[in-house]
Amino acid sequence: MKVVKFGGSSLASAGQLEKVVHIIKGDVQRKFVVVSAPGKRTQDDIKVTDLLIAYYEATLTHLPTTEFTQEIIQRYQEIADAFQVEKAIMAEIKENILSLQTLPITNNPHLSDTFLASGENNNAKLIAGILRTQGVAARYINPKELGMIVSDEPGNARILQKSYEQIYAWRNESEILVIPGFFGYTEAGQICTFSRGGSDITGSIVAAGMKVDLYENFTDVDGIYVSHPGFVHEPETIKELTYREMRELAYAGFSVFHDEALMPSYRAKIPVVIKNTNNPQHPGTLITTKRDISQQPVVGIASDQGFASIYISKYLMNREIGFVRRILQVFEDLSLSYEHMPSGIDDVSIILRERQLTKESEEELMRRLAFELDPDELRITHGLSMIMVVGEGMRQRVGITAESTSALARKHVNLEMINQGSSEVSIMFGIQEVQEEKAIRALYYTFFD
Amino acid sequence: MKVVKFGGSSLASAGQLEKVVHIIKGDVQRKFVVVSAPGKRTQDDIKVTDLLIAYYEATLTHLPTTEFTQEIIQRYQEIADAFQVEKAIMAEIKENILSLQTLPITNNPHLSDTFLASGENNNAKLIAGILRTQGVAARYINPKELGMIVSDEPGNARILQKSYEQIYAWRNESEILVIPGFFGYTEAGQICTFSRGGSDITGSIVAAGMKVDLYENFTDVDGIYVSHPGFVHEPETIKELTYREMRELAYAGFSVFHDEALMPSYRAKIPVVIKNTNNPQHPGTLITTKRDISQQPVVGIASDQGFASIYISKYLMNREIGFVRRILQVFEDLSLSYEHMPSGIDDVSIILRERQLTKESEEELMRRLAFELDPDELRITHGLSMIMVVGEGMRQRVGITAESTSALARKHVNLEMINQGSSEVSIMFGIQEVQEEKAIRALYYTFFD
Repeated sequence: MKVVKFGGSSLASAGQLEKVVHIIKGDVQRKFVVVSAPGKRTQDDIKVTDLLIAYYEATLTHLPTTEFTQEIIQRYQEIADAFQVEKAIMAEIKENILSLQTLPITNNPHLSDTFLASGENNNAKLIAGILRTQGVAARYINPKELGMIVSDEPGNARILQKSYEQIYAWRNESEILVIPGFFGYTEAGQICTFSRGGSDITGSIVAAGMKVDLYENFTDVDGIYVSHPGFVHEPETIKELTYREMRELAYAGFSVFHDEALMPSYRAKIPVVIKNTNNPQHPGTLITTKRDISQQPVVGIASDQGFASIYISKYLMNREIGFVRRILQVFEDLSLSYEHMPSGIDDVSIILRERQLTKESEEELMRRLAFELDPDELRITHGLSMIMVVGEGMRQRVGITAESTSALARKHVNLEMINQGSSEVSIMFGIQEVQEEKAIRALYYTFFD
Repeated sequence: MKVVKFGGSSLASAGQLEKVVHIIKGDVQRKFVVVSAPGKRTQDDIKVTDLLIAYYEATLTHLPTTEFTQEIIQRYQEIADAFQVEKAIMAEIKENILSLQTLPITNNPHLSDTFLASGENNNAKLIAGILRTQGVAARYINPKELGMIVSDEPGNARILQKSYEQIYAWRNESEILVIPGFFGYTEAGQICTFSRGGSDITGSIVAAGMKVDLYENFTDVDGIYVSHPGFVHEPETIKELTYREMRELAYAGFSVFHDEALMPSYRAKIPVVIKNTNNPQHPGTLITTKRDISQQPVVGIASDQGFASIYISKYLMNREIGFVRRILQVFEDLSLSYEHMPSGIDDVSIILRERQLTKESEEELMRRLAFELDPDELRITHGLSMIMVVGEGMRQRVGITAESTSALARKHVNLEMINQGSSEVSIMFGIQEVQEEKAIRALYYTFFD
C-alpha cells in the first residue's frame, strides 16, 4: 500500500493531470492520494496559493476581490473542462471560493488559514472527480472526516497523536481516497494549516497513519542531486539515502523538504521516494531508515553560505567555571541562535548565521561578549560557507577525511574549521565563501563521476 | 636583566649546587634567583617538601617529630658543610625548622602552608650564603620584604595586583636577590602558598614585577620534547614555541608547567626559556608571545588518554530551543565538566574525562540525559585518546590537515573526532586509545625527522 503525494507543479494544468492520472492508474497499491493546490503552469505564472493570499488581503482591507475570485475559479474551471468533470463539483468549488469573503474578518485567527487551505481542498475535490471520469473509483475526503486533528496554532499546526489511529480506520476503503494537503482541523472544528511545505507533512502523516509500505512524493525533479547543479555540471541524482543523511543535506542547502515534513514517516520508519511526475520511469531518490553503505559511502556534498564565526580566546579559559554558559547567555539575551561551537583549550568559536545580525546587533553582541568575558582576543569573521560531505558510516571510513582534505588542499582551499565526530553522517568544513565553488567541485570529483 | 629559577632536582645536593653557582656566575644579567626546596638526589630519595609534610602531620597528631626534623636539617647541613657557609645561617635554619612544631595547631589555617614554605625559605637563605662563599654579592630576601602580597587562600594563593609595583622597587639592587619560591604573605602577614608548581609561579611573578627581558627556568631536561619519548625514540626538543602552543601541548599531557604558573609572565609578554641545569650549553626551549612560523609550522604532537564520548542524536534536535542548555544543566547538576562538544545537525557529542565517572555516576548521567532529552540515540564510548598537532598559524596552512589525516589513514587509524577551527594553534583528533602510539608515530614522522 502506498501514499502518493503530488506537488503544485504536477497539478498545474490538464496536461500535468493526465500524467498524474496515469501514475495513479499505473499501480493498484496507490490507494491514498495527497494533493497540493495548483502550482505554476509556466515560469511567470502565479500559484493558486498566491492568488488566495492576494484575495485574503483584499478581503481584509475591503478592496475589490472579483479579479482574484475570477482568476482562482478559472484555474480550476480550465482543468475541470478538459476532463469534463461532473458539473456539481465545479459548482461547489465556485461557491466555496466566493463564500470565503463573507467570513468574519475580526477576531478570526483562522481566517487566513481558511483562505489558504481552500486551494488544496478544492483541488482534492476536483481531482477525485477527474479520477472518476477516467474510470478510477476515487472519492474526496475532508481532513476532518479523515480524523486529521491538529493543535490550534494557525499557520503552524501540529498533528495530534490520536489522529493516527483515526486515520488508520480508513485503511481498507475500497475507493482511492483523495486528501487535500496542508491543513487539518482543531478539536473545535477550525481549519489550521501546517507550516510551509505543508502538503508534504500531510502525505507523511497519512503514510504513518495508514502504515503504508511506501510514501511516494512526486515533484518536478528526478530526485535529490549529489551536488548543487549550480556548481557541478549535470550532477548525478542520489539513488538511496537515509533520513539522517537527508537531514544533513537539507541543512546545507538541499531544501527538498521542509525540516519537519518527514517527521511522521521517519518515526513510523516508512521509506519515502522522491519521483518526477514528468519522468516517472526514473527510479528517483529513495529515503530509508537504513541502507547498505558498502557501495556508496558518500551520498552527497552540500554547502550553504552566509555564516559568521566569532572567535574568543582567553588564556586559561578552561579554568573559568561557566565560561561557555556565559557565552550562551549573551546569545540568548540578544535572541541569537548559533549553529556550532567548536572549542579549543583556551578558545572557542561560535558559528552563526549572518542573517541574524544587523550592524547594530553585531556591535552590541561584540560589546557584551567583551564586557562579560574579558577575553584576550575577540573577533568576528564574515562570509563563511559550510560544506558538508554526507554519508552514513563516515566515521568507520578511515580514508574519507583524508581524501576530502587532500582534495581541498590540492585546490588551495583554506579550512577555517572542521567539524567531525559529532555527526556520524557528515564531515563539515568551514571555508571562505569565495572558495565555495572550487571546494564543491574538488569534492564532487573526488567522490563521484 | 633575567630571572633565573631552579627546580628541586637542581638544588638537591652540593654537586648540583656547584652547577647552579656556575650558571649564576656565567651571566651578569642573572640578577634574581628563585629557588625551590631541595629535591631528590637519587630516584629513591625523598624531597624536603615531602619530609615537611610528614613532619607537619606528626605535629598535628602529636607523634614524635625528631626523626623528621633531624633528616630535614641534615639535608641543609650537608650542603652548607660542602660550601663552608657561615655558621649563623645553618643556626637560623635549624632554629626555624625546630620551631615549626611550637606553632598553634588549632584554628590555624596557615599552619600547613607555614610548614611547607619553610622548605623554600630556608633553601633561599642557604643559597644566598653559598653564593657569598663563591664571591658572588647575593642576599636572601623574604617575600614579605619583596612585597609579594597574596590572597588569603591557603594552598591556593593568588598574587595581588599591587605586588608587581612593590617588586619593581627592588629592580636596581646591587646584590643578586635570592628569593624563595612557592609562597607569599597575606595582607595580615600570614604565609600562604601557591598551588602546585608554586616556585614556577614565583619566578613568573618576579619576572613580571621586575620587567626583565627573560625568565630562565632551569630543570633537569633539555627542553620540551616535540613528542612523547615513550612513543618516539629520542624525539627532538622544541627550539621555540609560543605561550599558546605551550598551553595546547600542556593540556594534552606535556605537563612542563602547572597551568597557571606562567600567567604573570604571559600577561607581561616576557619570554621564558626552559633549560637543563645538567646541560646548560643546550639552548633549551624558548617560550615567546610570537614566533616566526615560516620555518616550523608544527611544533609538537601531544596526546592524552582517558576520555569518553557521549553521543546524543535526535531528529530535528536543532529545532528544540535550549537543547544544549539542558545537556549542560545535567552535567552541572552532577558536577561533571566536559572538554569539548562538537555538534552536528541532529546530534551532539560531549567529550569528557573518564576519571570523573564512576559506574554509578555514569549510569545516573545516562539516565538523566535519556529522561531530560528523550533522544533517538544515546550512547557512551570509553577509552578515547585526544591527539593534538600543535602549531601557530595552523589554519593558514592548507596542507597540514591533509598531511595529518593522510598519515593517519595510511596507518589505518580511525578518526572518532576532528576538532579544528576553534583553536588557531592546533588540530585535535579523537581516536581509540589502542591506536594512540601508532597515531603519534605516524604524525611524528610526517612533521619531524
